[in-house]
Amino acid sequence: MKPVRVGLIGTGYMGKAHAIAFKSAPAIFPLSTDIVCEMVAEVDAELAAQKAREFGFNRFTADWRQLVTDPEIDVVDICAPNYLHKEMALAAIEAGKHVYSEKPLALSAIDALEMTEAAEKAGVKTLVGFNYTKNPTIQLAREIISNGEIGDVVHFRGTFNEDYLADNQLPFTWRLKREFSGSGTLGDMGSHLINLAEFLVAPMTELCADIQTVHRERPTPDQPGNTGTVENDDQVHLMARFANGAMGTLESSRIAWGRKNGLWFEVTGTRGSLIYDQERLSELQLFTNDDRPSRQGFRRILTGPQHPDYANFCVSAGHGLGYNDMKAVEVRDLIEGIAADKPMWPDFRAAYRVNVIMDAIEQSHAEHQWIQISV
Amino acid sequence: MKPVRVGLIGTGYMGKAHAIAFKSAPAIFPLSTDIVCEMVAEVDAELAAQKAREFGFNRFTADWRQLVTDPEIDVVDICAPNYLHKEMALAAIEAGKHVYSEKPLALSAIDALEMTEAAEKAGVKTLVGFNYTKNPTIQLAREIISNGEIGDVVHFRGTFNEDYLADNQLPFTWRLKREFSGSGTLGDMGSHLINLAEFLVAPMTELCADIQTVHRERPTPDQPGNTGTVENDDQVHLMARFANGAMGTLESSRIAWGRKNGLWFEVTGTRGSLIYDQERLSELQLFTNDDRPSRQGFRRILTGPQHPDYANFCVSAGHGLGYNDMKAVEVRDLIEGIAADKPMWPDFRAAYRVNVIMDAIEQSHAEHQWIQISV
Amino acid sequence: MKPVRVGLIGTGYMGKAHAIAFKSAPAIFPLSTDIVCEMVAEVDAELAAQKAREFGFNRFTADWRQLVTDPEIDVVDICAPNYLHKEMALAAIEAGKHVYSEKPLALSAIDALEMTEAAEKAGVKTLVGFNYTKNPTIQLAREIISNGEIGDVVHFRGTFNEDYLADNQLPFTWRLKREFSGSGTLGDMGSHLINLAEFLVAPMTELCADIQTVHRERPTPDQPGNTGTVENDDQVHLMARFANGAMGTLESSRIAWGRKNGLWFEVTGTRGSLIYDQERLSELQLFTNDDRPSRQGFRRILTGPQHPDYANFCVSAGHGLGYNDMKAVEVRDLIEGIAADKPMWPDFRAAYRVNVIMDAIEQSHAEHQWIQISV
Amino acid sequence: MKPVRVGLIGTGYMGKAHAIAFKSAPAIFPLSTDIVCEMVAEVDAELAAQKAREFGFNRFTADWRQLVTDPEIDVVDICAPNYLHKEMALAAIEAGKHVYSEKPLALSAIDALEMTEAAEKAGVKTLVGFNYTKNPTIQLAREIISNGEIGDVVHFRGTFNEDYLADNQLPFTWRLKREFSGSGTLGDMGSHLINLAEFLVAPMTELCADIQTVHRERPTPDQPGNTGTVENDDQVHLMARFANGAMGTLESSRIAWGRKNGLWFEVTGTRGSLIYDQERLSELQLFTNDDRPSRQGFRRILTGPQHPDYANFCVSAGHGLGYNDMKAVEVRDLIEGIAADKPMWPDFRAAYRVNVIMDAIEQSHAEHQWIQISV
Repeated sequence: MKPVRVGLIGTGYMGKAHAIAFKSAPAIFPLSTDIVCEMVAEVDAELAAQKAREFGFNRFTADWRQLVTDPEIDVVDICAPNYLHKEMALAAIEAGKHVYSEKPLALSAIDALEMTEAAEKAGVKTLVGFNYTKNPTIQLAREIISNGEIGDVVHFRGTFNEDYLADNQLPFTWRLKREFSGSGTLGDMGSHLINLAEFLVAPMTELCADIQTVHRERPTPDQPGNTGTVENDDQVHLMARFANGAMGTLESSRIAWGRKNGLWFEVTGTRGSLIYDQERLSELQLFTNDDRPSRQGFRRILTGPQHPDYANFCVSAGHGLGYNDMKAVEVRDLIEGIAADKPMWPDFRAAYRVNVIMDAIEQSHAEHQWIQISV
Repeated sequence: MKPVRVGLIGTGYMGKAHAIAFKSAPAIFPLSTDIVCEMVAEVDAELAAQKAREFGFNRFTADWRQLVTDPEIDVVDICAPNYLHKEMALAAIEAGKHVYSEKPLALSAIDALEMTEAAEKAGVKTLVGFNYTKNPTIQLAREIISNGEIGDVVHFRGTFNEDYLADNQLPFTWRLKREFSGSGTLGDMGSHLINLAEFLVAPMTELCADIQTVHRERPTPDQPGNTGTVENDDQVHLMARFANGAMGTLESSRIAWGRKNGLWFEVTGTRGSLIYDQERLSELQLFTNDDRPSRQGFRRILTGPQHPDYANFCVSAGHGLGYNDMKAVEVRDLIEGIAADKPMWPDFRAAYRVNVIMDAIEQSHAEHQWIQISV
Repeated sequence: MKPVRVGLIGTGYMGKAHAIAFKSAPAIFPLSTDIVCEMVAEVDAELAAQKAREFGFNRFTADWRQLVTDPEIDVVDICAPNYLHKEMALAAIEAGKHVYSEKPLALSAIDALEMTEAAEKAGVKTLVGFNYTKNPTIQLAREIISNGEIGDVVHFRGTFNEDYLADNQLPFTWRLKREFSGSGTLGDMGSHLINLAEFLVAPMTELCADIQTVHRERPTPDQPGNTGTVENDDQVHLMARFANGAMGTLESSRIAWGRKNGLWFEVTGTRGSLIYDQERLSELQLFTNDDRPSRQGFRRILTGPQHPDYANFCVSAGHGLGYNDMKAVEVRDLIEGIAADKPMWPDFRAAYRVNVIMDAIEQSHAEHQWIQISV
Repeated sequence: MKPVRVGLIGTGYMGKAHAIAFKSAPAIFPLSTDIVCEMVAEVDAELAAQKAREFGFNRFTADWRQLVTDPEIDVVDICAPNYLHKEMALAAIEAGKHVYSEKPLALSAIDALEMTEAAEKAGVKTLVGFNYTKNPTIQLAREIISNGEIGDVVHFRGTFNEDYLADNQLPFTWRLKREFSGSGTLGDMGSHLINLAEFLVAPMTELCADIQTVHRERPTPDQPGNTGTVENDDQVHLMARFANGAMGTLESSRIAWGRKNGLWFEVTGTRGSLIYDQERLSELQLFTNDDRPSRQGFRRILTGPQHPDYANFCVSAGHGLGYNDMKAVEVRDLIEGIAADKPMWPDFRAAYRVNVIMDAIEQSHAEHQWIQISV
């Protein structure tokens, strides 16, 4: 079978995570075909060369447009800043490439829709990097819910909190400007949480949100005393109603001291509950009323070979996966989707929905009222 | 000094907790005066007699009106169902007694206000049983916040979830009717959480709430197949803004499988955070950015003799207090307040505020919009 | 029925815990008879008077011999330092009193045996304050083991670690001298652990121990630079074999930084396991292979009304008991044992066995070899 | 610089983990040279071919002797069963290859010594797969201890418990025979714990051990009712003294229900303590008496970019490493050691020491007494 040849745009935090996954996935999973790490694009040619070498890619370029039109590339992998996703994806789609993009897909729902429709029209495959749902533990959570093991879901409480901007003396960067990043914690972590909540519960039908930029000015490196004005949110939370009638709250913060990868949720059903904490990503706590009352309790399930995908990493339970392992599962989905010409999830349309909800959240805050989700 | 003579109305769950506290408090604390357990009132005379004997009270009556006017009673302690609080408290106040009442104070803010004004006019002392703030661990949390150890509070997330009605086959009772209980989980647990949130953060200025009765019909014991219609809430949550600008969410449920005493909160400040879980009531988790970065982490503080009130129970740290111990602190506050003729907290006025917020929550849900808190 | 009249010797840490329990137990439990708090003995008359008043006892004395022979006393409760237990208990027995003594019962097995035989010959009842086994959670653990829910026990690992002497600048006290305290952490906490291990598993048949005094000199308050020589153990651990063939390790330390009430154990059986941590005294973690493999995990059971004795404290699960509550259960056992003229556990003979094992531990260390337990 | 060409013997559990690491390490770390995955050896040629393809190796063989003498191989990586380590390593050393071997190095100390001396004489580099010490969290633990942040170590309590043979109906395999596996849980997990204890504390000088085979017969697949006799240990524990005077207990079990990767330790020093749990491999709990008493507590440090090696995996703290990531660090050490011609740790001599202690443990059990460690 033809190998899948990858072109990677962007070699920062996420670019590296993708590179590691392209290298490790074939040894982890029985893939249907090979992966060829073909080309890296980075704005600076020297950096591009260095990263191609480090990441084990064959070629490099300082011009991402060259990458997206290169005939030796099957998939364009976009790990560039958010504001560039649209332009890059549309160019790749136009060149007939499959697109694997980091999240959030776009700075607005309207942009995301344009990208989605272009991809669907072109018939290329798309996958967006909402990697947390790829975790075997999260897959197990969904399986438990789908099986009805906790009954009908009646409540969801989820957070995605970190503290990477909690220190108000951290310098101003382009990430704090709307034109480059769009929203703040909402797009960065909130988008994952939205995707996850709907993955586990049901589509949201209505929401009411509140948003705050707590640290409005941050020092700029240019001159002592100078500051830049932060244009996007430090913390956001919302109440939601889901299509199945469940209630929920979602919260995201980048200033929540002590939280390092605080993707956390509790799902309550009519027969049981689940609790998950991303900082302990190979554990799931399950409570079910099947147990006799005097022996009931949240049980801490350690992910193991009985659970989805885990056995590919390790045959012993509880040995634990790491952050980068979730990307390996994602890459497996990418390669298998392309190899078998089957749909991938979450694709651009699914990611578009996340953008719709993000827009609704900002609208709800601006209008200080509940908003219906129309899509 | 004159002893404080107590009349206890109601001998159920809370009545017993109060009785234990009246007995244990004098051995735990160096009280300024003695407590005399004078009289118990219970609707059934035989039960009243039995409970007086069990609880170690001198006399009993089947007529609470007799108790509130008895000249040998200094404090009337109301542990009767919510809908009776008002009538009993007003009668006690009229008789010139101090009043110690369980929460929520009343079925509505207007009733609570009437009770508050009556007590203030009569010059009697009042105390309402929001016992969770009496926990040394919670007092420590407040001390840490007041000291500025976590900086300015920017977010509060609190829940008070239990599962005592999660099973939808549990029979219908009077507690599920508005005329007897008022609201459901909102009054039962939500009221505690409201009181606690304001104790730790600041007064709420605005809120937006959502409420649900998930199990609308429950079987009545009379005949198989018959059901009663539940009139109050199974789960409620809300977003709030506090006077200091902080955002918050509060949530309460009586159908949250697995949660047994799920009073839980996380307070995030500009310099650190606190996490508390009532199911581990002698632990507080503190994160502070004072620690150097590579050694930062939530630290689990076990309550001990360095913390408020703990040393009275035990001179060794980490030996742990229980639920009933919080009531002993509350009784200490009651006795010392009366003995020294000084204000107690939370008094009727403070409890009235909780009723105001409870009303605003129900209004917000009914009107499906944000509501300003006017008091 | 005749009330049980109590005489309490010693009003320090444990004396106060006992006093609280005598006051609270009747309100907590449906006792068969009343408790009369009759007399307190303390070396200093003024202190004795003050404590009698604080603890709510009728009379006081500065001469414990007067207490043990007082005709109005039914039970002598010994909360005096360890080296006085024997003399006091023998005097009380001679006076025909029941004896409730703190642990360890004696400074040596031979003393404990003398006390045991005296009590048995006199036909008085005895109870020794190994209070941790009174915790409903520990009772549940035993019930689970006895039911065979974790199969046959094959391993026990237990610790009882605290840090109250971890700071080597803490001053020298009489507790650090053998003539007054006997052993150090071994008698103080190790004795509880020995009692608990045999309660849960089986009698020990053989052991091999190691003991250390880490901080050999501590400052005396008399003059800067002066020190006293510590004569008993800071840390002790041992391997054991139990009569049922199980292996085990036991460890106790008073210098284990961070451990505040670190009575912790894990019991492994052929079908499951239990984990307990006294710092979370209302939780028990149970793993059983009855659960299907993909849903197995340690479940955190919160003690509740389905479990032994809990409902007397509170009708809601997970509300939590505290350290003093265990003493209330112990007092219940004392009163019911006397009232019904039935055996109590652990009595002097059971406590003697603990002294036998403590002696074997010290012998094993001294001889640097395994020792058979002969009783 | 010349690449390092790897020959991998064995493609089971560990072989796969090594393969993943050879692929991912170059993308994770800035290695000094390239890794060439040259050849795989597996007993069955077809399986060898399949695994070479899956793992991304250039060639394969069904004869490991061909691999060890192949001129295109620089390092022989031994992931074959324990009883083959010696023969393979000696052959590889004779062929002048560097050797990377799984643990335990050999079935006995005498064999390990022969291997060590052969390697040292030949001047080849060696590395043994005690991977747990490669975890950034464990490196942090060692750094904290080395810095004196917890003072002088006075106690170590470590376990390495799993439950993979807890079910006594699991079939008999060659791993349960001494000639193929040597000891049981002692070699499998105990060897890691020994290595770790000495890494963190000091060399052991003396020990006393107890060992048990709980399930002595297991069904053989040949015929219902037939069983095979288990020849090695299900559980082992020991007391030790370390060269610095510290006391310790070590325990390992393969029948400890509920423990999945239960490498757990607590190190107590004169100024603080550390707790670690491999099932939460990116957390370290640190207690230090530097904190003021009322704010002391075990703090949960989430491994992050401030800690050793972590930033290579991820720039955000708390995102978590997995089991396979530790092998990537190990491979980094292997490649850098060869590239820079510098010593690696743990080499054969360090692994020999582990075998010495394993032998002493078995001797101690057999002789039922304390044993001095002579090396």
